[in-house]
Amino acid sequence: MKTEVAFCLDDYLKTKKQVIDNALEQYLPGQENYPPVIFQAMRYSLLAGGKRIRPVLCLATLEALGAEGLQNAALPAACALEMIHTYSLIHDDLPAMDDDDCRRGIPTSHKVFGEDIAILAGDALLTEAFRLLSNRELMTGIPPEIILAVIHEIATAAGCFGMIGGQVVDVRSEGMSVDEDALYYIHTHKTGAMIVASIRVGALLAGAGREALDALSRYGHHIGLMFQIADDILNVEGDRSKTGKSTGSDASRGKVTFPSFFGLDRSRAKACGLAEQAVQALSGFDRRTEPLRMLANHIIERKA
Amino acid sequence: MKTEVAFCLDDYLKTKKQVIDNALEQYLPGQENYPPVIFQAMRYSLLAGGKRIRPVLCLATLEALGAEGLQNAALPAACALEMIHTYSLIHDDLPAMDDDDCRRGIPTSHKVFGEDIAILAGDALLTEAFRLLSNRELMTGIPPEIILAVIHEIATAAGCFGMIGGQVVDVRSEGMSVDEDALYYIHTHKTGAMIVASIRVGALLAGAGREALDALSRYGHHIGLMFQIADDILNVEGDRSKTGKSTGSDASRGKVTFPSFFGLDRSRAKACGLAEQAVQALSGFDRRTEPLRMLANHIIERKA
Repeated sequence: MKTEVAFCLDDYLKTKKQVIDNALEQYLPGQENYPPVIFQAMRYSLLAGGKRIRPVLCLATLEALGAEGLQNAALPAACALEMIHTYSLIHDDLPAMDDDDCRRGIPTSHKVFGEDIAILAGDALLTEAFRLLSNRELMTGIPPEIILAVIHEIATAAGCFGMIGGQVVDVRSEGMSVDEDALYYIHTHKTGAMIVASIRVGALLAGAGREALDALSRYGHHIGLMFQIADDILNVEGDRSKTGKSTGSDASRGKVTFPSFFGLDRSRAKACGLAEQAVQALSGFDRRTEPLRMLANHIIERKA
Repeated sequence: MKTEVAFCLDDYLKTKKQVIDNALEQYLPGQENYPPVIFQAMRYSLLAGGKRIRPVLCLATLEALGAEGLQNAALPAACALEMIHTYSLIHDDLPAMDDDDCRRGIPTSHKVFGEDIAILAGDALLTEAFRLLSNRELMTGIPPEIILAVIHEIATAAGCFGMIGGQVVDVRSEGMSVDEDALYYIHTHKTGAMIVASIRVGALLAGAGREALDALSRYGHHIGLMFQIADDILNVEGDRSKTGKSTGSDASRGKVTFPSFFGLDRSRAKACGLAEQAVQALSGFDRRTEPLRMLANHIIERKA
């Protein structure tokens, strides 16, 4: 039991974030390239901070399966997940979408670089993610057929059957009355799909079998939905210094959220229930899943 | 000589286009999927016609190297090239970019589906291209390390060092005086990079060696630049029924083009010179490169 007591999630997250930030800095082309503005815009949004939760989940899953020796080889995949997440934020913030001026406490990409460059910076980050994923020199020791499975996993989660599908239903539901099915669809796709993919990518890289992959996918499904519910709750009652966005911005925009549908108390209860289910999904694993277990509770505590 | 006389490029292009259109229809998810609007928007732009020049170049290169037996396995890559080309057109046409109402003779995506869905349909086509490229079930018989090289080639050509870089310089040069270097940069990147990639992908799939790959890349570089010059010329003097766009739209927008920089006569001479250089780059190959040779001249004749 000594190990579990000694484990400090905050230190763990800090260390992992540093590893990921260094890798992102290394993989992302510098602004000495031509034309500078596109590289500036890509770097501006990607290096603006953020919790790097998707890459952390990917690396923590790798460790949970005893494959921490592959961490360096897994970093391109972990960083590709963050690049795709960042591109989706840039495009979500555009005037034609959520029309947000502020993100992570700083002006959004189109406010700084103009709409044209913001669209192209998003496109470029998405494309760069796949360029990184197919760079054999960086992912040494990973068999090419595994890399292809990782690319397929990420493209499926990010595309029209995943994140983009969720975003489409989200933008088309604003100000409209939607049912519970649509609410779940939005949350499990817009946020959930890439969270699940982050975990599955870690598992694929570690060479997980079908059973482990299924259990970890269930964990991912629960924390993905919980993550979005916690985000919704924070948007209602959080302070701007934490979110970098205006409190109540979802409500004023007529966004469909868990609090607007179920109220705050039931939303909190749902999030807690999901955290429990997430931990339960890991019951067949050993103590190396401790970071994943603690992350499930951490997301609730920090956010809701 | 009999074979060469009998070869009819128009029939060849028609046959290949049919094969590619069938494959696109097969690979692209149907609008019975949820949410229908994103699949409708993806299909609207991708199946709106077009010459399918990139996939044709890919398949013609495969044949030039005697690997026509791999055509079925190469179709996902050929179609991915067209999906990426189509996504770039959807985003180029957006109000924040070229603000075009009409493309291939029909209203542009954002005119039909709204700006939000047009942005997302472009994102989805780009993502779907990589999902298709990493689908091992479709690319049977191609070694996974070759597929990864193809993905890397396409991502590099489509990204910030290729097509997107060219588009950035293009949108930022409108109405400004630019020098010859910038003009060449725009044309070799915005259009050229993906044309070169189409040919190189065919060569990679055929297992071409370094020397053949270099020669074919030179061919691609010449026809890519020629293709864009011919397009510029057509924009000045072509008729709308052929282009689907307004004649003179580049000039009224203050776009930097070969005719605006060198005049029509010198632009035509440059295009012809490039066609010759393209054919010359193929001098070390046998008669199976006949479609590629004839394509070089065809592009000039049809366009300029």
